Amino acid sequence: MSKEGRTDPRAVLEAYRAGRLSLEDAVSAVDGCYFQDIGHTTLDHDRHRRTGTGEVIYGGHKTPEQIRDAFVALAARGNGVLATRVGLEAAALVLEAVPGAEHHPNARIVMLRGEREPAAHTIAVVTAGTSDLPVAEEAALTCEFLGNTVKRISDVGVAGIHRILSRAEELRRARVVIVVAGMEGALPSVVGGLVDKPVIAVPTSVGYGAAFGGIAALLGMLNSCASGVSVVNIDNGFGAGFLASRINRL
Amino acid sequence: MSKEGRTDPRAVLEAYRAGRLSLEDAVSAVDGCYFQDIGHTTLDHDRHRRTGTGEVIYGGHKTPEQIRDAFVALAARGNGVLATRVGLEAAALVLEAVPGAEHHPNARIVMLRGEREPAAHTIAVVTAGTSDLPVAEEAALTCEFLGNTVKRISDVGVAGIHRILSRAEELRRARVVIVVAGMEGALPSVVGGLVDKPVIAVPTSVGYGAAFGGIAALLGMLNSCASGVSVVNIDNGFGAGFLASRINRL
Amino acid sequence: MSKEGRTDPRAVLEAYRAGRLSLEDAVSAVDGCYFQDIGHTTLDHDRHRRTGTGEVIYGGHKTPEQIRDAFVALAARGNGVLATRVGLEAAALVLEAVPGAEHHPNARIVMLRGEREPAAHTIAVVTAGTSDLPVAEEAALTCEFLGNTVKRISDVGVAGIHRILSRAEELRRARVVIVVAGMEGALPSVVGGLVDKPVIAVPTSVGYGAAFGGIAALLGMLNSCASGVSVVNIDNGFGAGFLASRINRL
Amino acid sequence: MSKEGRTDPRAVLEAYRAGRLSLEDAVSAVDGCYFQDIGHTTLDHDRHRRTGTGEVIYGGHKTPEQIRDAFVALAARGNGVLATRVGLEAAALVLEAVPGAEHHPNARIVMLRGEREPAAHTIAVVTAGTSDLPVAEEAALTCEFLGNTVKRISDVGVAGIHRILSRAEELRRARVVIVVAGMEGALPSVVGGLVDKPVIAVPTSVGYGAAFGGIAALLGMLNSCASGVSVVNIDNGFGAGFLASRINRL
Amino acid sequence: MSKEGRTDPRAVLEAYRAGRLSLEDAVSAVDGCYFQDIGHTTLDHDRHRRTGTGEVIYGGHKTPEQIRDAFVALAARGNGVLATRVGLEAAALVLEAVPGAEHHPNARIVMLRGEREPAAHTIAVVTAGTSDLPVAEEAALTCEFLGNTVKRISDVGVAGIHRILSRAEELRRARVVIVVAGMEGALPSVVGGLVDKPVIAVPTSVGYGAAFGGIAALLGMLNSCASGVSVVNIDNGFGAGFLASRINRL
Amino acid sequence: MSKEGRTDPRAVLEAYRAGRLSLEDAVSAVDGCYFQDIGHTTLDHDRHRRTGTGEVIYGGHKTPEQIRDAFVALAARGNGVLATRVGLEAAALVLEAVPGAEHHPNARIVMLRGEREPAAHTIAVVTAGTSDLPVAEEAALTCEFLGNTVKRISDVGVAGIHRILSRAEELRRARVVIVVAGMEGALPSVVGGLVDKPVIAVPTSVGYGAAFGGIAALLGMLNSCASGVSVVNIDNGFGAGFLASRINRL
Amino acid sequence: MSKEGRTDPRAVLEAYRAGRLSLEDAVSAVDGCYFQDIGHTTLDHDRHRRTGTGEVIYGGHKTPEQIRDAFVALAARGNGVLATRVGLEAAALVLEAVPGAEHHPNARIVMLRGEREPAAHTIAVVTAGTSDLPVAEEAALTCEFLGNTVKRISDVGVAGIHRILSRAEELRRARVVIVVAGMEGALPSVVGGLVDKPVIAVPTSVGYGAAFGGIAALLGMLNSCASGVSVVNIDNGFGAGFLASRINRL
Amino acid sequence: MSKEGRTDPRAVLEAYRAGRLSLEDAVSAVDGCYFQDIGHTTLDHDRHRRTGTGEVIYGGHKTPEQIRDAFVALAARGNGVLATRVGLEAAALVLEAVPGAEHHPNARIVMLRGEREPAAHTIAVVTAGTSDLPVAEEAALTCEFLGNTVKRISDVGVAGIHRILSRAEELRRARVVIVVAGMEGALPSVVGGLVDKPVIAVPTSVGYGAAFGGIAALLGMLNSCASGVSVVNIDNGFGAGFLASRINRL
Repeated sequence: MSKEGRTDPRAVLEAYRAGRLSLEDAVSAVDGCYFQDIGHTTLDHDRHRRTGTGEVIYGGHKTPEQIRDAFVALAARGNGVLATRVGLEAAALVLEAVPGAEHHPNARIVMLRGEREPAAHTIAVVTAGTSDLPVAEEAALTCEFLGNTVKRISDVGVAGIHRILSRAEELRRARVVIVVAGMEGALPSVVGGLVDKPVIAVPTSVGYGAAFGGIAALLGMLNSCASGVSVVNIDNGFGAGFLASRINRL
Repeated sequence: MSKEGRTDPRAVLEAYRAGRLSLEDAVSAVDGCYFQDIGHTTLDHDRHRRTGTGEVIYGGHKTPEQIRDAFVALAARGNGVLATRVGLEAAALVLEAVPGAEHHPNARIVMLRGEREPAAHTIAVVTAGTSDLPVAEEAALTCEFLGNTVKRISDVGVAGIHRILSRAEELRRARVVIVVAGMEGALPSVVGGLVDKPVIAVPTSVGYGAAFGGIAALLGMLNSCASGVSVVNIDNGFGAGFLASRINRL
Repeated sequence: MSKEGRTDPRAVLEAYRAGRLSLEDAVSAVDGCYFQDIGHTTLDHDRHRRTGTGEVIYGGHKTPEQIRDAFVALAARGNGVLATRVGLEAAALVLEAVPGAEHHPNARIVMLRGEREPAAHTIAVVTAGTSDLPVAEEAALTCEFLGNTVKRISDVGVAGIHRILSRAEELRRARVVIVVAGMEGALPSVVGGLVDKPVIAVPTSVGYGAAFGGIAALLGMLNSCASGVSVVNIDNGFGAGFLASRINRL
Repeated sequence: MSKEGRTDPRAVLEAYRAGRLSLEDAVSAVDGCYFQDIGHTTLDHDRHRRTGTGEVIYGGHKTPEQIRDAFVALAARGNGVLATRVGLEAAALVLEAVPGAEHHPNARIVMLRGEREPAAHTIAVVTAGTSDLPVAEEAALTCEFLGNTVKRISDVGVAGIHRILSRAEELRRARVVIVVAGMEGALPSVVGGLVDKPVIAVPTSVGYGAAFGGIAALLGMLNSCASGVSVVNIDNGFGAGFLASRINRL
Repeated sequence: MSKEGRTDPRAVLEAYRAGRLSLEDAVSAVDGCYFQDIGHTTLDHDRHRRTGTGEVIYGGHKTPEQIRDAFVALAARGNGVLATRVGLEAAALVLEAVPGAEHHPNARIVMLRGEREPAAHTIAVVTAGTSDLPVAEEAALTCEFLGNTVKRISDVGVAGIHRILSRAEELRRARVVIVVAGMEGALPSVVGGLVDKPVIAVPTSVGYGAAFGGIAALLGMLNSCASGVSVVNIDNGFGAGFLASRINRL
Repeated sequence: MSKEGRTDPRAVLEAYRAGRLSLEDAVSAVDGCYFQDIGHTTLDHDRHRRTGTGEVIYGGHKTPEQIRDAFVALAARGNGVLATRVGLEAAALVLEAVPGAEHHPNARIVMLRGEREPAAHTIAVVTAGTSDLPVAEEAALTCEFLGNTVKRISDVGVAGIHRILSRAEELRRARVVIVVAGMEGALPSVVGGLVDKPVIAVPTSVGYGAAFGGIAALLGMLNSCASGVSVVNIDNGFGAGFLASRINRL
Repeated sequence: MSKEGRTDPRAVLEAYRAGRLSLEDAVSAVDGCYFQDIGHTTLDHDRHRRTGTGEVIYGGHKTPEQIRDAFVALAARGNGVLATRVGLEAAALVLEAVPGAEHHPNARIVMLRGEREPAAHTIAVVTAGTSDLPVAEEAALTCEFLGNTVKRISDVGVAGIHRILSRAEELRRARVVIVVAGMEGALPSVVGGLVDKPVIAVPTSVGYGAAFGGIAALLGMLNSCASGVSVVNIDNGFGAGFLASRINRL
Repeated sequence: MSKEGRTDPRAVLEAYRAGRLSLEDAVSAVDGCYFQDIGHTTLDHDRHRRTGTGEVIYGGHKTPEQIRDAFVALAARGNGVLATRVGLEAAALVLEAVPGAEHHPNARIVMLRGEREPAAHTIAVVTAGTSDLPVAEEAALTCEFLGNTVKRISDVGVAGIHRILSRAEELRRARVVIVVAGMEGALPSVVGGLVDKPVIAVPTSVGYGAAFGGIAALLGMLNSCASGVSVVNIDNGFGAGFLASRINRL
């Protein structure tokens, strides 16, 4: 088994040509290179090869035991492991089972750092308000887990526009900018007009009344009048961090 | 009273023609063949004849006592009984009252298996992710309660497309395929393009943010670009299982 | 009949006390002070006294003839008349019937200017983009009709934030600021953070896709993180202008 | 540092011209006049100058400790402090830390009154029903915190129309009217037709069923057939009070 | 065939008892008493007996020819005929084919008046604005077709509240009140607080922006704080008129 | 003070004409006939005269103490009192304070029956499923409080259509029919096609997934293809009962 | 090339094993078995094998020329061709280019019938109203194109419930039932309670006001209280017909 | 004026220090470096410096003359010009006024190519269906205008999953992948699972019924279970192309 934990399908095909495998067995063996069904979960052994990163555990809608088991299984393969949306009970189970795992309760992340070559560039993570920090931390920790350096710029929403303007140089030094905002979600439009780098906008569910749990921010960001802005799901700090890392490491 | 627990209306009509019943009494007696009002509930004695299956207890919005009473009443008629959306308290009441009843807490089902002729074909129940399992189990147990054999294929969502592709032959051996998915609900479209059997799509409320409690998955499935796919209500595993059984036993 | 076109109800009460009117007649005469039913319309003769302004004709959902008739009737009372949402056909009918009426096709306004004491202060009307101009003109012309001086500041949306910043002094010289914006509707938040005057935000239906005909801008403005901002209906330039004038003339 | 707690940027520019500051240092010093980054929060020292009021603490989505810290920091600058959406736990923390702070649990407000010149005019705060009182109190206390006199008129909804009519004179004596209503949100339309002053409508989440948490009231107010009405976010008593004060003190 | 155009099922049952009909033929003959399949339409011959009124033609989504054919067929049975949502082309076809039919283009109604005993009481049809008149006329003409006297009260919306107040006595003389309003739909709440009769609220699609084609008015009416108000579909003047007549003739 | 607890305004007018009251005092005294401001609530003393019924306490969004106080105050005027949406704590407070008050926990109603002349006709209250009973009981108890006889017909939803058909004669004997249904809300359409009486449809929040808390049932009822059906708010049993009584007692 | 118009991939694999193809060429040749890129379209040659039916042309959002070209290309392969959502202009182009093609303008279908073995069972296509016929015809013609016999039952909506009841036997003789309905979409619930066969519900955009272009019917069907019902997209007659055929031919 | 068409603000600051400019003039001159107000439009001369690209003309909601004028003005500055959402009439005006401009009617783009250094990498533009081509072309032409090479892969939607799988190598050779899809919008999830590059998803308004003009696709993409996917507005091909170029040229 290779480092990524899978058999190379080319070896299967060669064994088949050499007659060491029947046609049916060859098909079955090729299948086996790609995934493994371990009961409630089908492990995607091939994801690292295809997408450059192993599986990440999404803890939402899962029991603490399911999260712990998945974390242990992935840690056993010798790489770093990242789990998001982890509640306190599940975090305790993982920390008990996996030495070296660290818990970031504000961001609801548990992770075991692996070895990665550091990226040459920086990712900026910007928040409109203090209440957006948990989502921003999910993004920032995801970036760091994936080997990136992060510059955090917090509480610079548009109602005091000089705050973000005074940070323009810091923004421009980053290669990718993640902007996290709730309420009207206007900050990405302003940032998008200030930098020449990709901007990833993360709407948060911060707000009340007609904020509708993040819909107002989401719509604001999708309709941004600035170019170079794209959007991920409401409160999806992980998605923004993952994508930022992918761009940053191109 | 017949095995299905109702009087045959033909007997009433014959008694009427023979003059043993007045016109008014005949109308009343015919009514009596079809249902029975027992206070808070009107039992539909005729459903088995009309639709091939007796009444199923939907436990949502009902008190534990109402669920228990209905279960006991239906069990007394000598057939199997199926109750869905049953909470822990109600389940305990039923198990205490009805020997032989079994509880599946993950699927929130309590059931008393009856005698049914086994179906000749298999139903496949496919899930996109581990979090969709409770709904899928509601579907699978419903199928089994109705006398079908079920093939479960779990955690084969579209982000690792080779997982479902490698199971294509298993899918094709089934006569009906139930696909359970949350988030973007894309799996039924892929399955619908792989098989020549009816596909029943079940959107789940798994997801967050703009998943909107299953609306994203529901819309995705209704707009499936694959033909041969139809949809049931969000989280409605029972409905999918019931329909799959009806098709499978045609 | 007074200048506002209505009888004074005090005169009625005095006539009644003096016995010149019966109880029933007094009630009826008081009614008559307030409105007049002229078939398809009930003219609100009392509105000027109660709210400081006469009736304005909303041309939407009305036939050209209905608009023309209402305009003529109000013009006959010797004051200025304002009609909004007037199509080309209706405008032509009014211009033919009322000498001195002027037509602003971009703003869809027809108006006959009346005599009003000029307001001491200025109202600023700011637009995010060129496409917002028709709604902004409806607001600005309404302000001018009501006797206010208007400062127009156009095409200063947040994607080029220095544009609005460089106009900050002009904004601060106004007593009320109307901000008109479509798409994500972020401009009022920035303006609200720059001035210490009331800001009236007008969402426009400018945009496409998830702009949803102005919903995105409306939600953005309702959730503005800046204080001192309130919102009127989508594309409701008239409402903003009317309110701005009311504040400006306090 | 001036009373408002910030350096005057003109001083910086003069120092720069005199050669006491390099170009880079001047830019940096100007920045410093406007805000201060203290970790999780960027204090907007310039807001008082720009908008006439210091920062207000929005307690929603914040931890009790964050609220307490922010309150203490702002109180230390010698002005009044206003915090909204403050829960019981956070309120206790603030009251313990800041002598003189007062807690209004119904309105979820904690505030430390500062010195302000009293406004010459009155603001009316009108509610449709008893259930709307908490939001109305948030508005009224905000007005009072900002130095205004408030006239409260409660429980005068449109189903008993004579209640509001009989208060028309009181309404007309106010310079600004705030109308707070849930359910169908019709009261602002009636009030808007009775007075010649600006009306600020606050939809509340009071209601059930198709009230949809305030959407019905919000839409009703946005579509008001009365002129001179504008709207703030659902349950946003603070926003209405702040804006009313801004208008009242023009 | 009786005047209502159907066979009496009692006659069938008697023929069956007398042995003149077999069991199967009796069932079939009873069916025949109730409806008739004439190709694209299944005529409901029994509706008059069950509900007191014959079928009404809903012209929406139908071709002019389908409307004409249905109108002719119903007119041939010797009663009055009512068709709603009839466009100009279909109206011309009907008028040509059915002498005595009358066309009301504003209300989009074509009808052939039948003989009905006049109702003892009056129905009031109230509109908030001139733009609501077409829907109100659909309601009023439906009432008149069904034999009721109608009192029309127009353009008395809540922004000039004295208009409706001055008509309170007229309202109270009616036995049922239909209130037709667009925009915020507040008028039914005020009327419901003035009378002790049933109020039927009809939301119209009049309005713009956040009126959302009548949704704002619909929600306003459903959430009316006045008791005694119920609601029909947006723009459904016919439904309101039909129900009002049913109540009025009790 | 009259039995309804208010002064007759005619007496005031006569005193004014006789010179016993000044003009200002007369206006004030007329006001006093209509309502009374008792702090957090404005009692509408005139509602009984205008609408035939006294005020009803809506307990939602109110504190237990507010409900108790209002109940005591209204009971003190010697009539019956009805309070809806009353929680257990508030109910206990009322029962302790008001002898004779009765509590219906399933319907969340507390009421003190008053003296009313019994209505000559019956109201039918029909439910689609057992889960709809609490809302139906709110409707039925409201009817009974207002002096009507109620016929309850339960659990006769459309999936077993013979259940409602067999009750058709009972339905037709009622003068008004209330139909309570959740899920798809189809029962009112079927009932509306069976009877010639007014049908009041009450959507309930019973259901799951795409039932969206009663929206599916609400839309179904608003779009009913049967004539003679109108709709009240989701779960608004009281509103349906109140309106039914108003019709029944015409 | 086989009758289905594709190369058999087993032949490729055998050629590869025999050394007649290199590894890279084999991969490429296998690809070629499955599809063909012809510019704006990628023909899915393998769909017939996978799903039992060839590609169907969805004419929506396509130009007349694109539809004609696709139709000609598929017809050239010697099988039947089905195109849906075809406008008049595109239909004329196809009829001119393909002899034997037939046009059904009401259903917006153009098709060239192919040879298929007739199915042993019947599919029932039921409509609630005359206005639903175009969608029902799309379903029925799709069934017939795929070799099924169709029983049409039209205009039997729930407001005259005896219409559908009298057709119960015909319904029960079908193996699959398609129910097409707009407005409240209640008919599938009634049908689902009458038969023991799969019911496919098709919501239509027929209706007005709160029908919201089919949303009311869609939600009604998704929440059907009858078991055995599944739903396809609004107005998706083709999807229902395709699925019904797939079930009917199992 | 520099090539980007603006004055360098450093020159202004130096002139100010040298005393050649007063404080007020310096502020004004700095302003002038950044933008220019030419009536209906405020040109953002500084955008090229800040964001790496000049202004792009969004033709939606603009008159043909406004589009032509803006195009001419930008072309006069000697760079390439891109205009999107250009109708036929506006395109003709531009082509007549600007030699060398080219019109792509399917993509609704008019552009004048400028000189740009070619990017070293390729951008893939993938479409799910033929109907998505116009939006995809808007994206592809935007990429090309900005100096990138584009690989188009068309009509490879998930219902025939082998189509996209067979193109996996081509996908992996791109540095950025744009995926354009309507209906259920599932294709980005599959692509995101196949590549290790950033994926930009563009929902299109292609579809019908519950596609709701692109909402279904938008929600599907926002909830993608694949990591590395972000989303732009519905039909926003330009936004995707602009962002892809920004990433590709990092």
